[in-house]
Amino acid sequence: MKIAIQGELGAFSHEACLKNFPKAKVLPCAVSSEVFEALDSGLADAALIPIENTLAGPVVVHYDLLLEHDFHINAEFRLRIEHQLLAVPGTKFAEIREVLSHPVALDQCRKFFAKHKKIRSASFYDTAGAARHVIEAGKRDQAAIASRAAADVYGAEILQSNLEDDAQNYTRFFLVERKPRAPKDTDKVSVAVGLPNKPGMLFKALSVFALREIDLTKIESRPVRGRPWEYAFFLDFLQTDRKAAENALHHLEEIAQFVKVLGRYKASE
Amino acid sequence: MKIAIQGELGAFSHEACLKNFPKAKVLPCAVSSEVFEALDSGLADAALIPIENTLAGPVVVHYDLLLEHDFHINAEFRLRIEHQLLAVPGTKFAEIREVLSHPVALDQCRKFFAKHKKIRSASFYDTAGAARHVIEAGKRDQAAIASRAAADVYGAEILQSNLEDDAQNYTRFFLVERKPRAPKDTDKVSVAVGLPNKPGMLFKALSVFALREIDLTKIESRPVRGRPWEYAFFLDFLQTDRKAAENALHHLEEIAQFVKVLGRYKASE
Repeated sequence: MKIAIQGELGAFSHEACLKNFPKAKVLPCAVSSEVFEALDSGLADAALIPIENTLAGPVVVHYDLLLEHDFHINAEFRLRIEHQLLAVPGTKFAEIREVLSHPVALDQCRKFFAKHKKIRSASFYDTAGAARHVIEAGKRDQAAIASRAAADVYGAEILQSNLEDDAQNYTRFFLVERKPRAPKDTDKVSVAVGLPNKPGMLFKALSVFALREIDLTKIESRPVRGRPWEYAFFLDFLQTDRKAAENALHHLEEIAQFVKVLGRYKASE
Repeated sequence: MKIAIQGELGAFSHEACLKNFPKAKVLPCAVSSEVFEALDSGLADAALIPIENTLAGPVVVHYDLLLEHDFHINAEFRLRIEHQLLAVPGTKFAEIREVLSHPVALDQCRKFFAKHKKIRSASFYDTAGAARHVIEAGKRDQAAIASRAAADVYGAEILQSNLEDDAQNYTRFFLVERKPRAPKDTDKVSVAVGLPNKPGMLFKALSVFALREIDLTKIESRPVRGRPWEYAFFLDFLQTDRKAAENALHHLEEIAQFVKVLGRYKASE
């Protein structure tokens, strides 16, 4: 099985692959649109994409790409994001003057930089890319903040672990494939919904779930291209009763301009 | 009046200032948290912040900062985003080999790069910063994609106008101040709402508007820090009947963990 990810080897998406599909081959792609193209062309069998983080929020480009393409979310996974300080093997912590990483990762390690005033932070396009850069440059005054997977991939030494300020830092990933799997223990559904731009429409759309006591776990709105100030809604709901869920979707179709089921899968714990 | 903005002089926030407050002094800040600090300390009288774009979606950091601080949204403005090709005066278009800009701006001008294969795009941290860089470097093989305001600020020549693929490209800005103004013709309200994590709560929250035929124009969800998979909601609604709007807010307080009014202002056209 070949899984496309966005980012270099050692990115957190790679770490999520190693954890959930230890035998899979990983295909790193520079940008998210390439991940979807790789799946479309058959270059990859699946894509593993981050969809939201508990601190930073949604990865909006992936919502847009899921709506554009006719793929299927077949699983979800949660990964605890743990930031490690990586350096050239043998480097002493006292030697480090500069730490490179993605701006979001740097921002999640503010306490580290507040504590170590002699170390300045520098933005890099990617966490794993920063790790690779530090190892390739071979400088002992530079380090990177990246995943444990990045340390393995580039042969870096982990000088300090868990630099993140907030331990409640999780990313939710979707496994996306060309065909639906719909396992028997499916209990979660993701849909995209377009609603007429009239007062009360979102309330009506949510009523199809509320009136059946179906638990909506997530709502995300995205702008509709070419129609300023109109939005598409992405909804996740728990399917405890399969018949009730199907009825809710039929009811939603009566109200909405479009309803697109993005996937049916097993909710992760 | 001194208005803090995020970004360098010539950023689209600066363009929005020039259009709506032509006599104001502008205080450029590197990051959004500095904009809010400048308002807090009195260094600035107001802040003009982008809150959403019709192609890219919400500027999530500004939602989070509005919730953290006790400021007031006193006006909203919409700005058509027009991307200009800026170069050192006297440069001929045929000389250009590289165009710098913010990745979002580059992504909004894909047709330009598809048409001109000899020109490569290069990411820069800021549109206005890219314009300044090109002028300061003085190279005739480089150009920047930035605003008309950036051309004025840095003395660049506009070689081509309106490079954007999609003309329906607007950004909505909020004017944020320390004190509420609440003009008489206020007809829009922005609130942040925390809801108990129980099924049907969002439906109940929206019912307070729907049952009074109040038009909800926008909903945005943001993760709650330290409580994974819980969300705060940002709602904008039109206040056609002041009494009905007040009743809706009282009703919402019965349901919600917290309701914070972020501002009452005149809806822009």
